[in-house]
Amino acid sequence: MQQIQIRTDLALEATESMRKQAEGEIRGVVLEEYDCMEDVHVTRVMITSKNAAKSVGKPVGTYVTFEAPQLQGYDEDYHRSISEELAKALRSVLPGIEEEKSVLVVGLGNRDVTADALGPETVDNLFITRHIINEYGKQAYRAEKMHRISSLVPGVMAKTGMETAEIVKGVIHQTKPDMVIVIDALAARSTKRLNRTVQITDTGIHPGSGVGNHRNALTKESLGVPVVAIGIPMVVDAATIVSDALEKLATELDSGKESLEYFRNSADTQLHNMYVTAKNIDETTKRLSFTLSEAINIALDMEQDKER
Amino acid sequence: MQQIQIRTDLALEATESMRKQAEGEIRGVVLEEYDCMEDVHVTRVMITSKNAAKSVGKPVGTYVTFEAPQLQGYDEDYHRSISEELAKALRSVLPGIEEEKSVLVVGLGNRDVTADALGPETVDNLFITRHIINEYGKQAYRAEKMHRISSLVPGVMAKTGMETAEIVKGVIHQTKPDMVIVIDALAARSTKRLNRTVQITDTGIHPGSGVGNHRNALTKESLGVPVVAIGIPMVVDAATIVSDALEKLATELDSGKESLEYFRNSADTQLHNMYVTAKNIDETTKRLSFTLSEAINIALDMEQDKER
Amino acid sequence: MQQIQIRTDLALEATESMRKQAEGEIRGVVLEEYDCMEDVHVTRVMITSKNAAKSVGKPVGTYVTFEAPQLQGYDEDYHRSISEELAKALRSVLPGIEEEKSVLVVGLGNRDVTADALGPETVDNLFITRHIINEYGKQAYRAEKMHRISSLVPGVMAKTGMETAEIVKGVIHQTKPDMVIVIDALAARSTKRLNRTVQITDTGIHPGSGVGNHRNALTKESLGVPVVAIGIPMVVDAATIVSDALEKLATELDSGKESLEYFRNSADTQLHNMYVTAKNIDETTKRLSFTLSEAINIALDMEQDKER
Amino acid sequence: MQQIQIRTDLALEATESMRKQAEGEIRGVVLEEYDCMEDVHVTRVMITSKNAAKSVGKPVGTYVTFEAPQLQGYDEDYHRSISEELAKALRSVLPGIEEEKSVLVVGLGNRDVTADALGPETVDNLFITRHIINEYGKQAYRAEKMHRISSLVPGVMAKTGMETAEIVKGVIHQTKPDMVIVIDALAARSTKRLNRTVQITDTGIHPGSGVGNHRNALTKESLGVPVVAIGIPMVVDAATIVSDALEKLATELDSGKESLEYFRNSADTQLHNMYVTAKNIDETTKRLSFTLSEAINIALDMEQDKER
Repeated sequence: MQQIQIRTDLALEATESMRKQAEGEIRGVVLEEYDCMEDVHVTRVMITSKNAAKSVGKPVGTYVTFEAPQLQGYDEDYHRSISEELAKALRSVLPGIEEEKSVLVVGLGNRDVTADALGPETVDNLFITRHIINEYGKQAYRAEKMHRISSLVPGVMAKTGMETAEIVKGVIHQTKPDMVIVIDALAARSTKRLNRTVQITDTGIHPGSGVGNHRNALTKESLGVPVVAIGIPMVVDAATIVSDALEKLATELDSGKESLEYFRNSADTQLHNMYVTAKNIDETTKRLSFTLSEAINIALDMEQDKER
Repeated sequence: MQQIQIRTDLALEATESMRKQAEGEIRGVVLEEYDCMEDVHVTRVMITSKNAAKSVGKPVGTYVTFEAPQLQGYDEDYHRSISEELAKALRSVLPGIEEEKSVLVVGLGNRDVTADALGPETVDNLFITRHIINEYGKQAYRAEKMHRISSLVPGVMAKTGMETAEIVKGVIHQTKPDMVIVIDALAARSTKRLNRTVQITDTGIHPGSGVGNHRNALTKESLGVPVVAIGIPMVVDAATIVSDALEKLATELDSGKESLEYFRNSADTQLHNMYVTAKNIDETTKRLSFTLSEAINIALDMEQDKER
Repeated sequence: MQQIQIRTDLALEATESMRKQAEGEIRGVVLEEYDCMEDVHVTRVMITSKNAAKSVGKPVGTYVTFEAPQLQGYDEDYHRSISEELAKALRSVLPGIEEEKSVLVVGLGNRDVTADALGPETVDNLFITRHIINEYGKQAYRAEKMHRISSLVPGVMAKTGMETAEIVKGVIHQTKPDMVIVIDALAARSTKRLNRTVQITDTGIHPGSGVGNHRNALTKESLGVPVVAIGIPMVVDAATIVSDALEKLATELDSGKESLEYFRNSADTQLHNMYVTAKNIDETTKRLSFTLSEAINIALDMEQDKER
Repeated sequence: MQQIQIRTDLALEATESMRKQAEGEIRGVVLEEYDCMEDVHVTRVMITSKNAAKSVGKPVGTYVTFEAPQLQGYDEDYHRSISEELAKALRSVLPGIEEEKSVLVVGLGNRDVTADALGPETVDNLFITRHIINEYGKQAYRAEKMHRISSLVPGVMAKTGMETAEIVKGVIHQTKPDMVIVIDALAARSTKRLNRTVQITDTGIHPGSGVGNHRNALTKESLGVPVVAIGIPMVVDAATIVSDALEKLATELDSGKESLEYFRNSADTQLHNMYVTAKNIDETTKRLSFTLSEAINIALDMEQDKER
């Protein structure tokens, strides 16, 4: 059967679907799995060769995925703990973060579309220091070590007329951060992952993914500095859901492959530019953006500093 | 085959699906169709008997539906013309509006979920007069005839802890409007209707419909005053889309009915509390809410008054 | 010299100005003062007679005022501690709150004007339970005691055409809460109090005060149930600031009283409908609304429940 | 008497105060005045020499000021007409706009502070074409001539950690527009000008002005391309209002100069970081941002194109 191209931003889903096909391990892909906290499953996928990258369909690099079923819930202590775990993973992929660095945090997405507002809302809660340190020095925070944090919400191309990468590149050119953290709402392959999975990767952002598809490459290659991306799947493509259901049915019926293709194609056309999202997406976005911003604040030692 | 319950807020879709089954006309349902403007198709469904209401699954009353493919577009003149056509239809179902009336306009839905913000955003652009007339009289507007317009955004139950109907009833009890206009984002049966269909009905709002399902009956029976509802389908239930695709496939294959049921059910469970919406829903909501508010302003003679 | 009417929503300011005039204690006014936390000064004013009420210009009742200079700051632990202290004061004026009650929390003000958004934003962060308990009972929260909390953001008269009191009365009529908590952004007499003073009172809200002046009486007399009001001064009337400066100058010069009156009047006219507010009012409103919502959640035992 | 430094963003106010001092014309300053529409007064100030620039305190260039008392009102036809007049003035200062150009429109200010949101909200209503023309060419609009319009909302330094100029420079470096239009909420000298004056200038933006003071130079010198700035005064510094009142009083009393200075200084300290704004600033910002965006759309021939 011809390889079907289903869009997913999650390396975990990509490797899973590969594993099913390969019915075994993939050379050049290292998988580590462990649980942190009671019910949080962490998968660390390291894609180490170009061949592996090609077969998985994700670039060489590290992908840490947290599966946390209660991430959708209200428990503040749980969210606090997750923020701390995310901070650890974040520090493991931020190069040289034990030294003082200048970090630009970019919140991708469209603030006016609830499901796509994760990036902008996360950035709203960050502790920003660059302008203060530039003007008054670290002594303004009575700190010996202090990263210079700046943030940017570039907006989406339909509103700016510019590609996100153009804006980010320009700002990097001018402000010369040591590294970039990018936050984005992702598109998942399955509704089961929505709002409960966090992916952290040092490979940056690659074209053709994300809720609003408002993305072109934001990578070390394109931007000139290391790019760590944090994403949470907030939507599933409408076409994906239909495609999934049809495929299951076809497998069951073991017939009608041709019809299946026909229907999938018609579904794709009709569902073009549609996405599936949860009805309480407003509360979810609010909560998850706060959890991510806390994770970043902790990873960058900004937590206690907020309290000075 | 057992009647499948597919949720739709559009009387037009309900009658269409009935017609397909009946393969003919339905007694007690009067359909008038005409075109206004170049490409706007208007269907006026009058359900005149309880039997007809039962078979169509919509209450006795008048439903005017505008199908306007360019409603999603940018053309300001087009939107202006549509507003005027909607205003005419609105006046035809607002009882006694040629006399001076007190009208409460209610914007249903959740302001923080883009696809559900149509009601609140429409209300933001209305010309509100009740407080001015109550304090200074009509002479404040140098008008001989002037409706007293008030508005309410009750919010959604998850945030208020109250049913919308409780809030609206209480406010009606206290402020005694002659009639109520309710605006809501609807759930459609098909993605083809999204953001391009407007339904105006004098039957009010009935339970179990709408984007956020934040609705219980808002009708003349429950509120004690006539209720006119204006709705635009902004979402399709995720389950509906899958169900549709599966049904088409099953028809084609002419087999596997059992499997079909099985898959539909599993899809329903998985897609519970999900909806499908357009990616540019923010612009769409902004534009359509303005078009609706203009329609209401014109219908209530508030247009020229805004310019004094 | 004729008593000059300077608008203040703070009982503390009213009594202070009285004390200056009386140069001593006022009969029927009991003042208790103490410090909680390091630098938070609490004043509890009890106005116990109608005469005292008349001379102070505030109704009979209890007014607890917190002066907390660091309330404007970023320290999360500080805000958490203040929330707990506010919760205690709140419980002391919420009648019979040790029993299970039904509480309606009303967020006054205009969400679209940053300085007036304190009430609506506070309500956004509350833990709402009424609809869940009404449908599933307390067991939904696995709790033995559980207040039924509902909330309302009535909006402002310029947008609704209705007085806030009309909307609140109607909703109380329909949903029958045992008591009401009202949150509002206040107008202070002095810029020194802005964003660092919290007033809690069991006398409700009285006409002619608040940022947007969007208020008529919300009191036990007008609503039929006890009304506790929480307010933070977010603005000073522009006229007040000028008036203050002029008065100081006149006192110093000990001359030109007539001119003073003349200028004060001209200032008043020019500054009509203007207010003074801090430039970082967005961050302040965000932080203070969260601190207030935490205080209410704690006072109503909703804190731990959020974590279930 | 020592020259008192009162901050104003309006060249008109600067020249007025100069004229009062000079009691005559200023060499190097050309003033043209005319009325357009019934009650709209237009002043075109051309500062042509460095000496004049120094004495007026504004850089060499052209400043067109519209004084339109009804700009605060609801009349849509009036706003439409003003947009057209503003468009003419805009075209007169946009260099070479009769040829096809690439124009970056920058909305300065803080979206979350109502009085400072004029820039971001204006940009929201623009017709953006750059990305479409870059991908599909002008034929996408079926137009022979079509400017490439892009837009940017850089945010404020307290949130980004970067100076506005850094962000704008970076984006210009990357996207190479032919010219920049900057929109900002201004600080006026007098409440009389608030929300009814529009200033268009080809001198760009200079440090130390604007509502949020979030500005460093955005000029042809600093950015490398022509910069046209559009501003509407939305606030008055709180200190200015007090200073004004005191000065009037002192003049009247003809005494107490010393006290005056003392009080002005104390007022300045107390009122630091405060501003005065209108109570209905939300409606004003909404209306004026729309009027400005229409003016820009018309000036850039985008009006009819929106309707295709």
